[in-house]
Parts: sequence; structure tokens; C-alpha cells
Amino acid sequence: MNILVINAGSSSLKYQLFDMTKRVSLARGLCERIGIGGRVKHYAEGRADYVSDRAMADHGDAIRAVTELLTGPDTGVIASMKDISAVGHRVLHGGQRFSGSIRITGAVIDAIEECVPLGPLHNPPNLVGIRACAQVMKDVPQVAVFDTAFHQTMPPEAYMYALPYEYYEKYHVRRYGFHGTSHRYVSARAAAMLSDRDPAALKVVTCHLGNGSSLAAVKGGKCVDTSMGLTPLEGVPMGTRSGSIDPAILAYVGEREGLGLAEITDVLNKKSGMLGLSGVSSDFRDLHAAADSGDKRAQLALDVFAYAVKKHIGMFAAAMNGVDALVFTGGVGENNIPMRRWIAGSLTCLGLELDDAKNDLRADGERDISTPRSPGRILVIPTNEELVIAEDTEAIVKG
Amino acid sequence: MNILVINAGSSSLKYQLFDMTKRVSLARGLCERIGIGGRVKHYAEGRADYVSDRAMADHGDAIRAVTELLTGPDTGVIASMKDISAVGHRVLHGGQRFSGSIRITGAVIDAIEECVPLGPLHNPPNLVGIRACAQVMKDVPQVAVFDTAFHQTMPPEAYMYALPYEYYEKYHVRRYGFHGTSHRYVSARAAAMLSDRDPAALKVVTCHLGNGSSLAAVKGGKCVDTSMGLTPLEGVPMGTRSGSIDPAILAYVGEREGLGLAEITDVLNKKSGMLGLSGVSSDFRDLHAAADSGDKRAQLALDVFAYAVKKHIGMFAAAMNGVDALVFTGGVGENNIPMRRWIAGSLTCLGLELDDAKNDLRADGERDISTPRSPGRILVIPTNEELVIAEDTEAIVKG
Repeated sequence: MNILVINAGSSSLKYQLFDMTKRVSLARGLCERIGIGGRVKHYAEGRADYVSDRAMADHGDAIRAVTELLTGPDTGVIASMKDISAVGHRVLHGGQRFSGSIRITGAVIDAIEECVPLGPLHNPPNLVGIRACAQVMKDVPQVAVFDTAFHQTMPPEAYMYALPYEYYEKYHVRRYGFHGTSHRYVSARAAAMLSDRDPAALKVVTCHLGNGSSLAAVKGGKCVDTSMGLTPLEGVPMGTRSGSIDPAILAYVGEREGLGLAEITDVLNKKSGMLGLSGVSSDFRDLHAAADSGDKRAQLALDVFAYAVKKHIGMFAAAMNGVDALVFTGGVGENNIPMRRWIAGSLTCLGLELDDAKNDLRADGERDISTPRSPGRILVIPTNEELVIAEDTEAIVKG
Repeated sequence: MNILVINAGSSSLKYQLFDMTKRVSLARGLCERIGIGGRVKHYAEGRADYVSDRAMADHGDAIRAVTELLTGPDTGVIASMKDISAVGHRVLHGGQRFSGSIRITGAVIDAIEECVPLGPLHNPPNLVGIRACAQVMKDVPQVAVFDTAFHQTMPPEAYMYALPYEYYEKYHVRRYGFHGTSHRYVSARAAAMLSDRDPAALKVVTCHLGNGSSLAAVKGGKCVDTSMGLTPLEGVPMGTRSGSIDPAILAYVGEREGLGLAEITDVLNKKSGMLGLSGVSSDFRDLHAAADSGDKRAQLALDVFAYAVKKHIGMFAAAMNGVDALVFTGGVGENNIPMRRWIAGSLTCLGLELDDAKNDLRADGERDISTPRSPGRILVIPTNEELVIAEDTEAIVKG
């Protein structure tokens, strides 16, 4: 069974085709600049890389480009689109409606539409992608996999804000959390790696660290807390996002800079985080390079990030009264050796002892980087959100 | 040596007179409704309580009322104002200028004035109190004790926000922290109670829980982190304050409710927290009563508060890599038995084991409520901010 995974953004569409029998990726690619020109990058097993400018007026055009590339003589990996059994869509915000993946119907589309206020930047393009697929691949079942779904098991004390209660009733203001597919995948992998432990009692803190970063507390396989909130702005600092700050700062700075609510929120989302603090870059590689050359603000940004992640690990350890496994994933979590040392190098109070030699080793794949005597395990687990989406899709279409 | 302690608010003035030889309070009181009528409550050692309406046009009038009461035939405890050696003032915000208490001079007044943008609600009345005392008690030395000073030892990774760096340079946007006098006092008392430990290595988490609540991480007697930020809005939820929330909520709610930056910030300060969530009250006693009668939102508010405090303890344990002592202080911290159990009843992962029987005991004074085998101590320490202000004032005027 082949499954196509789609992640549609406002002017982009990422795709990946999986052969689920072998659990391998056959092809993947990216359509960019949709509606404002067009560019396609396509990488297929056993084929030369394909990169080309190609006008795409809308996401329908993009889906048609994908079908041509997947079946084309020089770029294809399948004979025809009939070889695709289902399409899995990444959808950002499922609100309180979706606590798991679901086969897309008219009612599901309506419900995703209702969540647009909660995910105004992502849900609309996600819907465009779904509708484009429905048009181009008429009889192929489609599945929605939500970034928020895994976090729907949080208890009220973790998801409620101390705000006037009517904001929750009227506008559904609560913590939702994101990166759910990744947290679900790596926490399940951690449980598999700790096969001698009772999975129902296992306490895992997952750190998805990349350009966007979030942590989750996962107890017995269920999410009990996470660092992102109503939106992906809350929690630890990120590439360009501030993470949590004193909420009074918005008015304090807004008044002085002559910025309104929407504008200062835009600054917090796009001009803050690592970029704002360092003045150098939102990219961790650039920051390390600058810090190594003596740039103090780049070093400060890295310090602030590491310290915030470390504190969040403590938060979630206290929430669950323990950590059996700490998991690093995402671009930074999987590859950034000094950052992992900064974050986890002095957490013995939580029963987590990092093995510096193991941490320093450049390696791929799942691995344990804690000392043999460490009561809790420290794991590096490469995430694979696309595969999880494909697996969910397969499970749902198979019933 | 007698020292008068003054805490001046916008329309109020709290005072307390200490005999520093015996370290006892001789009299205390409150002038309310200054400028809008006037009411004075005065309680003196060995005297009947005095409560009376009394017109006070300004804080100068209030100070004059205080001097009359302290020296009066029926209410007095000293013969004349010459028996007062110095006045200690509580000042909210010392910005980055003050890392300790200081004798008030013209230059100090100017510096407190410069911190008005950081403490717009408190620093102006604090200054009014200082100037009124200077006028009424001309030759008596005055000392300023700052709520922020104790936190000035925080390292940059704890006090810097991941915001555009220019906000720090131009507007001094950073974490300051508050309740410093209380955190300093109870952390020092904790060190004294743990006299078998090396105070230079001692790791203490102090929880000042009351109508306003904050936590601090204190290592070797120095504050290394705290939960309040640029303003007292950040951190755990409070009586009417939201504490930390997703910063994107302001724009999300503001847009829907038709509120601007200043207005939504006002909601976060005055209509949120325990009051907003419960719809019942900002007072913990009312909330417990309501929850006991089956009010689910009152129970939710208590749960959200306890959970947030617990997570902050974990944050600071991770920050210091350990907790030797957890201290409860403030009205809620000192007296709220179920809340302490909720917060500290399942923190064995941090080496903190609550003794339920000791916690359940209604008691006064400093006490240890952890089990004998608990690696870290859990302490209840009544705070005494006024006494600390008096002690600082004494030390400074004595040189």
C-alpha cells in the first residue's frame, strides 16, 4: 500500500510518498511559490534530483505537478495515481474537536474550518491542500492528522489558563500544544527502547527542538502537559519566537514603540527569539559560529535557550513526579551536541546523568546518551512526522 | 533604637514602629482613603485599638496623623518623634540601579524617579511617602528598601527575555522579580534552620504565596532566578493576575473583545487569576469554601494554582540541579494546609517528601514539615518584610 503525505502551507506544499509494506519513502518533494511563480523540488528513490521552475497558479496546480512527477517517465516511482491508496494531510489545529487522526468527510472539513480562528495561518492552506487533493484524486480516501491531537489528553489544570472563564467558553482559549505527531512518535519509540519498563507507568519528557521548539510530558503514553499553548508562541524561545514572557511586556513595549496588539504580537512571533536576542540569525549553526568567534549576544541567545529548555524539563519532571526518559528530537535535539550538554549536563537531581562521550559522538539513529548508572535514560530519537502521518492514514483506511 | 517602617500606596500608607534593641513591634497601623476622605487604624502594644475616620488631604497629612498617634496620650508608644532614629521605606522598583538597600539622598530620589516607568503604580506613591516623611521628620535619616534588589544577582540567562535586544537597551526590558525582601528573609532563615549544611552551597526554593505569589531560586544565599518578571504579572496565577500565559492570547482575545493593549493588560492584572477562573473570589478561603460546596470552577482555580506552583518548583530545582530546602511563606504558604499538600505532596522525584501529619498541624512559627528521611527539607517560615526593612535601615544608619 502506497500512501501520499501532504503538508500544505500558504504558498507551499510538501509531499512524501511511502511504500507502507516496506515502510520506506519512495519520493518526496516541495512545491514552493505557489501563486507567485512556482518552483518544484522532487527527490525520488533511484532517480536524478529534479528541481525546476514551474508556474503553479494554485494548490490544485501543485497537486497536479506532484502527480505528474510521481508517475512521469524520468521522475516517477509509480505507474499511475491508482497506485496511491490514500492521502494523509498534516493539519495544524484540531481544537478540542479532534483527539486523533480521522478520515476526511464534509463534516470533518467543516470542523477544520471552525478551527481556523485558532490556526489562522495554517488551517486555511491545510484546507486548500485537502480540497485540491479531493479534486485531483477524486476517489482516493483522505485522512487528517492534527498537530494538536496528541495533547488532548492533558488534564484541565494543565490546559486551563487563569483567565476570565468566559474566554474559554466563548473563544476556546486554552492550551492546545503542537508538534503532537512528533511528541507521540518519539515518546512511543522511547517506550519501545525501554522495553524492560512498564509502559503504562513510564514518564517521558520529550524535547522537540528545532526552528520551532516544544516539550511534552508523556505519562503512560499519554500527554499530560506541553510547553506550547493556544498558539505555537508559548514555551521556550525559538528561532524568531519569544516563547513565554511577562504578558505585561506587550503593553510596556507597545506603548513605547507605538505598536498595537497585532503588531507587537507580530514582533514576538517573527523578530524575537534567537534572532532578536542575538541580532545574528535564527539558525543555531549561525549562532554557534558567531558565539565561537566571540559574539556575546549570540552566546547569550544560546544560553537563554538552553536554560529555558532545562527549566521546562524540571517543570514536567515535577508535574509527573519523575522522569524515566528524556528524549531529544528535531534538528537541534538530534544534532546539536553542545546544546544537549548545556541542557542535560547538570540534571542529576532528576536522576538524569549525561554520558559526555556518548553525547559527543556524531551518530545517526536512535541512541542512549546517558551513563549506565543514570536512573533515567537520556535518548536521542530522530523524529519522523511524515511516517507517523502515513501510518495513521494506513490504519484508518484499513479500518 | 526605634525605627519606623513605611509602605506608601497610592491612597494608603502602612506603618510599623520597631524597637530594634528588643526586635519587637511597638505599634502598627494603616492610613486609608488618603485624599478621598480618610480612615486610620492604629494598633499599639498595651493600648486599645484605635480606628477612626480622619480627613487626610495627602500623604503629608497621613504622616502627621501617624506622628500624633505614635506620641499621643491614649495611643502613643514613644514620647516624641525624636525617639525615632530612622525611617525605612518599602520601594517597589529599583530597576538595575539598586541591588541593596540605600540611604535616601537627592540622587537616590532621582534614581527611584527614573524607575517610575518600570513601577508606574507603586514608585510614585513610594516617592510621595518618602517626600512626606522628609518634610514632617526633617532630620531623621531615611532608607529605601527595594522589592527588586534581592533578585539583582540573577545571571543573564535568567533575566533576559528572547526579545529584540534593543528593548533591553532602550527600555530596560528584563526580568526583575519582586517580593525580594520576603525571599531574602525566608531563604536566610532556611539556611539558619539547616545549620549543619554549608550555607555557601545551599539550594533553596522559596514560595511566597498569598494574594500576590512568586517563587525564587536561591543558591548560596544569592537569588539565581525568580518567577515574576518585568512586572509582578508573570509567573504563577494570583488572586486577580493571570501569571504566565501564551503571549499571543492578548491579541486573540483583544481582537474578539474589542480591547486594546492597555485594556487587555488590565484584564490580565485585575480580572484574571483565581477570580477570573473561579468567578467566585480572589481569596483562597472563599475558594476553598466554594470548592468544598461543590463549585467546580473554584476547585479548578485551586488546581491550576497548585499545579503552576509545583511546576515552578521543578523549574528552579532543574535550574540549580537540586533543592536542599523548599520554603513556604506568605498568607497561603504559611496557613493553607491542603494547598501545601497539593503542591508538595508528590515531589519525591526532587528529594522532597512531605510529612502529612506535620503539614496538617495548625501551628505558628518556623517549622519543618518534611519526613525525617526526606533528603530535602520542606519548611514553613513566616515572612516578616517589615522587620527586614527595619533591620536594613538600622544597619545602614549605623554605618
